[in-house]
Amino acid sequence: MSNASTTGASPGDALFTDLYQLTMLRSYLREGMTEEAVFSLFVRDLGARNFLMACGLEQALAFLEEAHFSDDALDYLAAQEGFGTDVLDYLADFSFTGDVHAVPEGTPVFADEPLLEIVAPLPEAQVVETFLLNQITFQTNVATKARRVKDAASGATVADFGARRTHGADAALAGARAMYVAGVDATSNVRAGQRYALPITGTMAHSYVEAHDSELGAFRHFSDVFPATTLLVDTYDTLEGVRKVIQLAEERGDDFRIGALRLDSGDLGALAKETRAMLDEAGLEDVQLFASGKLDEFEIQKLLASGAPIDGFGVGTSLGVVADQPGLDSAYKLCGYAGTPRMKLSSAKSNLPGRKQVYRFSEDGTVARDVIATAEEDQPSGRPLLQHVMAGGERTEAGQKKPVEETRAYAEEAVGALPERLRALERVEEPYPVALSDAMDTRLKEVRSRLEEQMGVEAGGRW
Amino acid sequence: MSNASTTGASPGDALFTDLYQLTMLRSYLREGMTEEAVFSLFVRDLGARNFLMACGLEQALAFLEEAHFSDDALDYLAAQEGFGTDVLDYLADFSFTGDVHAVPEGTPVFADEPLLEIVAPLPEAQVVETFLLNQITFQTNVATKARRVKDAASGATVADFGARRTHGADAALAGARAMYVAGVDATSNVRAGQRYALPITGTMAHSYVEAHDSELGAFRHFSDVFPATTLLVDTYDTLEGVRKVIQLAEERGDDFRIGALRLDSGDLGALAKETRAMLDEAGLEDVQLFASGKLDEFEIQKLLASGAPIDGFGVGTSLGVVADQPGLDSAYKLCGYAGTPRMKLSSAKSNLPGRKQVYRFSEDGTVARDVIATAEEDQPSGRPLLQHVMAGGERTEAGQKKPVEETRAYAEEAVGALPERLRALERVEEPYPVALSDAMDTRLKEVRSRLEEQMGVEAGGRW
Repeated sequence: MSNASTTGASPGDALFTDLYQLTMLRSYLREGMTEEAVFSLFVRDLGARNFLMACGLEQALAFLEEAHFSDDALDYLAAQEGFGTDVLDYLADFSFTGDVHAVPEGTPVFADEPLLEIVAPLPEAQVVETFLLNQITFQTNVATKARRVKDAASGATVADFGARRTHGADAALAGARAMYVAGVDATSNVRAGQRYALPITGTMAHSYVEAHDSELGAFRHFSDVFPATTLLVDTYDTLEGVRKVIQLAEERGDDFRIGALRLDSGDLGALAKETRAMLDEAGLEDVQLFASGKLDEFEIQKLLASGAPIDGFGVGTSLGVVADQPGLDSAYKLCGYAGTPRMKLSSAKSNLPGRKQVYRFSEDGTVARDVIATAEEDQPSGRPLLQHVMAGGERTEAGQKKPVEETRAYAEEAVGALPERLRALERVEEPYPVALSDAMDTRLKEVRSRLEEQMGVEAGGRW
Repeated sequence: MSNASTTGASPGDALFTDLYQLTMLRSYLREGMTEEAVFSLFVRDLGARNFLMACGLEQALAFLEEAHFSDDALDYLAAQEGFGTDVLDYLADFSFTGDVHAVPEGTPVFADEPLLEIVAPLPEAQVVETFLLNQITFQTNVATKARRVKDAASGATVADFGARRTHGADAALAGARAMYVAGVDATSNVRAGQRYALPITGTMAHSYVEAHDSELGAFRHFSDVFPATTLLVDTYDTLEGVRKVIQLAEERGDDFRIGALRLDSGDLGALAKETRAMLDEAGLEDVQLFASGKLDEFEIQKLLASGAPIDGFGVGTSLGVVADQPGLDSAYKLCGYAGTPRMKLSSAKSNLPGRKQVYRFSEDGTVARDVIATAEEDQPSGRPLLQHVMAGGERTEAGQKKPVEETRAYAEEAVGALPERLRALERVEEPYPVALSDAMDTRLKEVRSRLEEQMGVEAGGRW
């Protein structure tokens, strides 16, 4: 198997990292700086969202369990300038021996809240940064988008049709899983279905109709093989296509069992109404309507608000590439080294020092506010979100791989407990309250003062 | 190795497909519809671009060479409803036996021009659609974006810092290659460097500075290991950081060899000017300035237009996720089956029937216009863009894997030959002229008339 035909990274491929992680590592080894570091992975700004849905932890833990430098990685590094025997020996023996604290996949999170904290010898914690950010940033982003699409569909089914336009194969596969966790009902991608035990969906494309000499002929043949299928009716003209289906129903009589029609172009709202009326008049009330083609959460909301009788949606590009917000402002920041809390002061990019815990407080059965606290304190009336999922490089009980259905059910419940206003598609005027605990605030001020004094600067910062 | 920790698809994984490709295949086998089909892969609309740079063909050919259904794929399908022995036997023996005609990677292309045409038995051509679109759509999109960023940088170096925020691992790796083809100078991702023989770049992160008890101490240690490195100066306060570098230069005297400083936050234009002045006054005229942090082609253009003395740019998220246009309206459409040209008529989504060739015509040494022609005709004064890269499932001479440097040089030349106005970052008022040949126009009208008559519709269409 040639490397050129591999898409993505092989399991535990620690060479999937930024070069600066390895140059820093070289310097750390030279200086003997291998003491325990704390890194926090969080998103600085929600952008157009009212909350994010954390996702990608499973891929992160699987990577950390297997992280290593393969022979081809070591050979490559040996050929680069300055990688001496001491460094190569360290990398040849590399494994991740640290601890991970993380919020479960499917948890709604807010700006500055850690999705994950790593406690590990500094060089180890540094090397894994790139892969962890790569996986968690995208999967969190696409899960969040998927939840919005599902909310807009308010009860109608949503299928992921994104594989052809996602950014590569990893995005299609891990993305399909993230969407399912967030509430999407099925994916068109068969490998994603196989790999992650997701429901798969799909029937016919325009090419099937075109390859036949007549549209009705195509419908006849396809329904012979798949009697209860969904027929795609817009290859030549949507309403003409619907008439062919009605003709097929007349031909087949009681044997007609077509489940749905798919509309994929044109004014979907108007066409759905006309199609529905034609089907109903022909006594085909049980045939459902499925819409696809350039849909996103806003378009779906508009279609349903206009009364379009659509039972399901296929959503491709806008969901798969998170079209309205394809990047998330995620960060993986050093919060402590050798027992001392650390932070970055510069302009709008500072971070909270030390190990943290997020407590979520409910009022009258609804989640009401979060507090970002130090890991050492206890806030007994709040629910701690970060769990100890990996210890000494091994998964703990809480970090075991979960069935995707369980994660999906947890996500549904966790999102359902949020204040209703956060489910709006637009940014709300009153964002969800996230405060710092007194202990966190004290620590922040202490570290900032210490650094300002040491560095001779005045920072101000974000808090 | 567990599947859960694999990112992306394994080589030639034909199960990376949409379910409807397999349901159609089942029907085709049942109907004996295994004659030769022609499919064309193209982009319907350039969106915010004046041209696209074709990319991803290498990954497409590598996939087609190895395409197969693995044992776990066959087991999975056998467990799905209705996949009978005949279908499973066909899939167990599956390989791609067709021909591919494609424009070389790095070729500028325009709306409706085929990037690739497949001629293969219908079920084979259908199964490979999803993967081909997945790879070519993203890589073409990110290569195009990269060319824009490089154009904006007008001579300054550009490094890809995107791996942490790209949509998964495949996007980071294949994306880094596509960016390099398009003219970006280096990538931060070490595996991308190893896999595709790309220059890699990177020195230090903020965490390195923070892990030390003083910024100057960090600079001292790092430059001991890497005397000619780039130092990151904005961890606490940019200009204070610059002062530390000047202090280091005084300490080191003739041994001071720092190559560059990196500014990663704040008002990069103003800070670059102040930094430059401070360095020059200290006699450090040779130390270059490197900027990063939320940059895209527009921001780079603005910085340079304002006279910011920046020698190189690190571009991450906006490039890696193609932030302003994360999706491309790509399509893979049936153009012929069993010797008869085919097309879709519906609304704005119709396509050009039959096998095609694109001819590019030059005037006075500059590329001036394209003609989309039938594959059968010859336009001797134009240069044909589509090459026969695969025959009977094997790469031809033209389809052999090329060194990335060769592809990059070709891309540079091909883009250099375009009319200068197309290099603007905004959409130009006068788009590049692409016409249909007379023979193509005649074929289009014939096929449309035939279909309109057969289907009893009036289409109009896009041409």
